[in-house]
Amino acid sequence: MEIRKIYEEQPIGKEISVKGWIRKHRKQKEIGFIELSDGTCFKKIQVVYDSKLKEFDEIQKIKFGSAIEIIGILSKSPISDEQLELQTKKIILIGDCDEDYPIQPKKHSREFLREQAYLRPRTTLFQAIFRIRSVASMALHDFFQKEGFLYLQAPIFTASDCEGAGEMFQATTQDLEEIARTGKLDYSKDFFGKKVGLTVSAQFEAETFAQAFSKVYTFGPTFRADKSHTPYHLAEFWQIEPEVAFCDLDGIISISEDMMKHVIRYVLQYAKEEIEYLDKYVSVGLISKLKKVLDSEFKRITYKECIELLQRSGRDFEFKPVYGGDIAKEHEKYITEYFDCPIFITYWPKELKSFYMKQLDDGTVAAADLELPGVGETFGMSEREVDYDKLISRMKELDMKIEDYDWYLKLRKYGTCTRSGYGVGFERLLMYITGVESVRDVIPYPRADKYCDY
Amino acid sequence: MEIRKIYEEQPIGKEISVKGWIRKHRKQKEIGFIELSDGTCFKKIQVVYDSKLKEFDEIQKIKFGSAIEIIGILSKSPISDEQLELQTKKIILIGDCDEDYPIQPKKHSREFLREQAYLRPRTTLFQAIFRIRSVASMALHDFFQKEGFLYLQAPIFTASDCEGAGEMFQATTQDLEEIARTGKLDYSKDFFGKKVGLTVSAQFEAETFAQAFSKVYTFGPTFRADKSHTPYHLAEFWQIEPEVAFCDLDGIISISEDMMKHVIRYVLQYAKEEIEYLDKYVSVGLISKLKKVLDSEFKRITYKECIELLQRSGRDFEFKPVYGGDIAKEHEKYITEYFDCPIFITYWPKELKSFYMKQLDDGTVAAADLELPGVGETFGMSEREVDYDKLISRMKELDMKIEDYDWYLKLRKYGTCTRSGYGVGFERLLMYITGVESVRDVIPYPRADKYCDY
Repeated sequence: MEIRKIYEEQPIGKEISVKGWIRKHRKQKEIGFIELSDGTCFKKIQVVYDSKLKEFDEIQKIKFGSAIEIIGILSKSPISDEQLELQTKKIILIGDCDEDYPIQPKKHSREFLREQAYLRPRTTLFQAIFRIRSVASMALHDFFQKEGFLYLQAPIFTASDCEGAGEMFQATTQDLEEIARTGKLDYSKDFFGKKVGLTVSAQFEAETFAQAFSKVYTFGPTFRADKSHTPYHLAEFWQIEPEVAFCDLDGIISISEDMMKHVIRYVLQYAKEEIEYLDKYVSVGLISKLKKVLDSEFKRITYKECIELLQRSGRDFEFKPVYGGDIAKEHEKYITEYFDCPIFITYWPKELKSFYMKQLDDGTVAAADLELPGVGETFGMSEREVDYDKLISRMKELDMKIEDYDWYLKLRKYGTCTRSGYGVGFERLLMYITGVESVRDVIPYPRADKYCDY
Repeated sequence: MEIRKIYEEQPIGKEISVKGWIRKHRKQKEIGFIELSDGTCFKKIQVVYDSKLKEFDEIQKIKFGSAIEIIGILSKSPISDEQLELQTKKIILIGDCDEDYPIQPKKHSREFLREQAYLRPRTTLFQAIFRIRSVASMALHDFFQKEGFLYLQAPIFTASDCEGAGEMFQATTQDLEEIARTGKLDYSKDFFGKKVGLTVSAQFEAETFAQAFSKVYTFGPTFRADKSHTPYHLAEFWQIEPEVAFCDLDGIISISEDMMKHVIRYVLQYAKEEIEYLDKYVSVGLISKLKKVLDSEFKRITYKECIELLQRSGRDFEFKPVYGGDIAKEHEKYITEYFDCPIFITYWPKELKSFYMKQLDDGTVAAADLELPGVGETFGMSEREVDYDKLISRMKELDMKIEDYDWYLKLRKYGTCTRSGYGVGFERLLMYITGVESVRDVIPYPRADKYCDY
């Protein structure tokens, strides 16, 4: 019987069989206690066995980390009404655990556990984090599907480059050693017959679908060959990119706020024990922070107001805040602490933002970033420039190759309409929701500069 | 107001505003009819306007494919109670549609539409297909999350190769032209400092998580540099890979059958009109085929029985069925037609299957394929070889490099247990559910040999 079902159905007094792994084993002379987890829920089950069992000595030798089956009678724990206990009739060793098992019943550093990425999900901390990740994923689908959005699985291989940046991975089936040896590079021999990269964003494809289904979202992996060694950067990360037709900047800001609140509400409900654990041991005050977000209306200020606020702050910033300059990490920190809640910074100078954003007469674009306290910029959103001529003239200003964007531009000729969208890095959102400080600890197998283990 | 909401709330007699795209425009002397879609639901809305409107002549010029806003009074259609109609007070042109718009109000071939992949979601056929894809995705999450499975987003970049095959894409940030020019290849300069590929399967990572959470599933893109030009192959496809601890082959077969039925039931409920459309125009008999699947218990036969059945069939197969030989496409066809329902073929000779499957004494492995009528092999599943020594000896038989599988093998030393899993290609599953004959028509942007447009 799964431990999740045992807690749901509480078959007290009945004989049941449970299979799982030993997370703690306390041995006394006449009695022993095993904390058993099968990972189906955050709670463990307490197993009690005593010397009346003829295999008592054998059982005492079973090591931490082993897989076992227990047959016993279920009862409430004498210590806590919430905890269930199994009075053992029989214990069967399913899979032993070798002496060199790297995880031991003590506190390991997160850096050490990262090196043991294939084993860390067995620890209580990562049981909490990865369950929350799963629940939050479901929360996203739940939100968008109930709101009538279409889930679009955008392609990973792409011949276009949304951000125009050079931080793209190339995918190839050519033999690099052969290229080095022969000095010959021939894309006609490559799988796709041309140079192809891994997508940095699904936005362009989402735009094509938004002009057919009105409301779409993507949720999938995206890639950046970004060498930043910060707690916020990964080379492979999951992104959510909704795109909505007949929707302006205000509209998309509201959708992103609703989504964020829905995810938090859902996680508080369906990963309650996991969040309580993190609140207690990892990020004290986490629950009250999250609840406060649910009760608040996110602040909206313009980029201009933000710069003025920074200038008035009297702080001695490393980077002086000036109109036209970027909002640095230290500025984000000040702003989010000042307002003490998530905050949208809107209407940025067009020079700071991407070419596809809707241009206004004052030199700004209809774009917004959502800044989260402790994490920084997490959502980037904009109304899209849907006027064909304005988009072309902006691309020319930026010396872009118009011919590379043929189909993207044509969207503006075939039934164009006001359209907005955003992108949010799922791992940064999870950092905020879990209170965990590194993006590498909220993704199962992190990939970053010189870092691709397992 | 969204068309989806109009049909849900039916504000008959009220003045409303609707935005969408013209999918048909019939013009008569005194009156005009527009079929308007916004893609939020499969149904369109009928817009009626007459010559009493002062912009009548202007409106008649608005082209197919344009985005418009209509303000009008909602009523039931005089023709059908199911259809709603808008009596126009005002029509505003939002986005015109150029003369060279490739989609016209006539039947286009699927091959032509594939070339217009960024526009095909606007056609009725692809409105149906991609909505079903979205609903089926949600059905999968709904099934697994309700059953207590953890959603694992497995890594795309990988330093290991599950199938041991050479059909892997390599990901690199090295400049191939520079390698050709200089003749120098230096992996220390590559992003990860070593050779890295794109995952062909998330199974190994799923196995690591199953030994922590008992029940996990992945749902994400996987990649094969497969040059097959069949209607069943893609270079990039979405795969669902559940992995379950304390579960044998029979158990995982049942889970896969339950999942399949859940998805069909969910799609019939939440994409009813889309399925009805396909049943009528694309695959006659689709609904009765799907309902029959729901009512049936999937057949299970052993590989041996299957070969005997083929041999007894009296058919003149191109490939003669022999014990130890593969089940060819023509055999799959015969078998699925013979039983006329999904069928599991179980217990295959180990030579035909992967090294990681549980070996039995009779030379078979505890593996099964699910064959779907009209699609062929769609699910592959097995009980895993969880015995360290047996796994090593099989790998040695196959001349595999043991040291490349270090962490995978160690799973068998740290609390190993009976464990099973399967992989199913989402696009093949969708072919079966939609009745569409090519895998390229059930994925937004198909990628295959020499084929990576958009």
